[in-house]
Amino acid sequence: MLSKNQIKHIKSLQLKKNRVSESDFIVEGEKMVNELLSSRMVIKRIFATKRWIDLNVSKLKLIEYQVVSEKELIMISNLTNPNNVLALVKIDLPNFDYNNLKGITLILDDIRDPGNLGTIIRLCDWFNVSNIICSNNSVDVFNYKVVQSTMGSLFRVNIFYKDLVNFFHECPYDRTVYGAFLSGSNIKRMKIDKDSFLIVGNESNGISDSVASFIDKKLRIENISQGAESLNVACATSILLYQFC
Amino acid sequence: MLSKNQIKHIKSLQLKKNRVSESDFIVEGEKMVNELLSSRMVIKRIFATKRWIDLNVSKLKLIEYQVVSEKELIMISNLTNPNNVLALVKIDLPNFDYNNLKGITLILDDIRDPGNLGTIIRLCDWFNVSNIICSNNSVDVFNYKVVQSTMGSLFRVNIFYKDLVNFFHECPYDRTVYGAFLSGSNIKRMKIDKDSFLIVGNESNGISDSVASFIDKKLRIENISQGAESLNVACATSILLYQFC
Repeated sequence: MLSKNQIKHIKSLQLKKNRVSESDFIVEGEKMVNELLSSRMVIKRIFATKRWIDLNVSKLKLIEYQVVSEKELIMISNLTNPNNVLALVKIDLPNFDYNNLKGITLILDDIRDPGNLGTIIRLCDWFNVSNIICSNNSVDVFNYKVVQSTMGSLFRVNIFYKDLVNFFHECPYDRTVYGAFLSGSNIKRMKIDKDSFLIVGNESNGISDSVASFIDKKLRIENISQGAESLNVACATSILLYQFC
Repeated sequence: MLSKNQIKHIKSLQLKKNRVSESDFIVEGEKMVNELLSSRMVIKRIFATKRWIDLNVSKLKLIEYQVVSEKELIMISNLTNPNNVLALVKIDLPNFDYNNLKGITLILDDIRDPGNLGTIIRLCDWFNVSNIICSNNSVDVFNYKVVQSTMGSLFRVNIFYKDLVNFFHECPYDRTVYGAFLSGSNIKRMKIDKDSFLIVGNESNGISDSVASFIDKKLRIENISQGAESLNVACATSILLYQFC
């Protein structure tokens, strides 16, 4: 049975300040926890229905687990339809080193919508983009909506939070910096450098001026519409990575 | 001031059955209502703050409007942060005619997530895809989450709901039917017919067998990942339309 303190602790992790102070975040559902079990993440405890534990106990080895009823799971879950298992996981950001940034590095300037960030992480996984640098004001990657919408890709892509101006100032090598704009060169006709930085901007305001000053080449996705002014940022990133990778 | 009946009516439109019986839906916020005002949609009434009315009264002409306080707007709004104006709009689906399906027609087989449908409508607008055929089980386009996430593109793209098997059976001409799968021909190396049908499937289950039987050419977006199993459906559609259009 869940203790009051356990319920309180898990629910407190809905807020970023508590995730930061506790260094914990939540992963939910059968698919996500399966991906988690084969990742390098440190699982502190698993809360699951008896059915799930019976089916998966061989994978748990030294991981602490606790059987909960479906009612208890509803009490701690962030999902409308909780799916058998919830894991309490240690927040463990990878060490940052400029020398590990191979291939395309995606740079996100103030992405605010959790679904967009999660979807972009999933895209990066699909296109083998290993590293994402988020501006410090971007939505927190351990927000449960981000975590869940990555569909497990969170465990295969490195996410770093940086002051982007410092990031470019301190970058020890000269790489082409591409930025996505509504005007710029049509990406269909561009050759892209293999090792480079690609910046996409905030949902409403695009790339901020201070970050834009580091861009070498402005890119655009051709707009053949009579009326649409912009694309959703995750859709634009899909097309850019498809063209880049 | 809002009457109790007005509040009840507007809030009842959160449910599809009430939208269908009343033939009304809701459009919210300054950007969306601006797009609405320049569309062919029939606006039944606008509820807005005095500030918004003062700024926009010249655009309203014969449209009935009513000043509401910010508190009242919160009472009827579906948004976390209501944005000055809410419009009650007549549901008016365009007449369907096979002869009007020029260029690429996008066919959605049971898209369930409102954000995905809204984002796909916005994409179609960007890529000048004028017609979308949704299976009858797809999420309702007049769901407020769909409406809001189209960012106004809803007013420029024709959406039809059909039994897809009947749609293909009754189609009077022979067009190539493309379908998006995890396996199939790599779209980077395909020539696409100008007038054709492109099917994308449900978020979890892809294209259903009964619909898949009408497909002439299976397409895939190359997966260069070590682990990602699938792309978000709106991201996949972005890449397909980018390649098709």
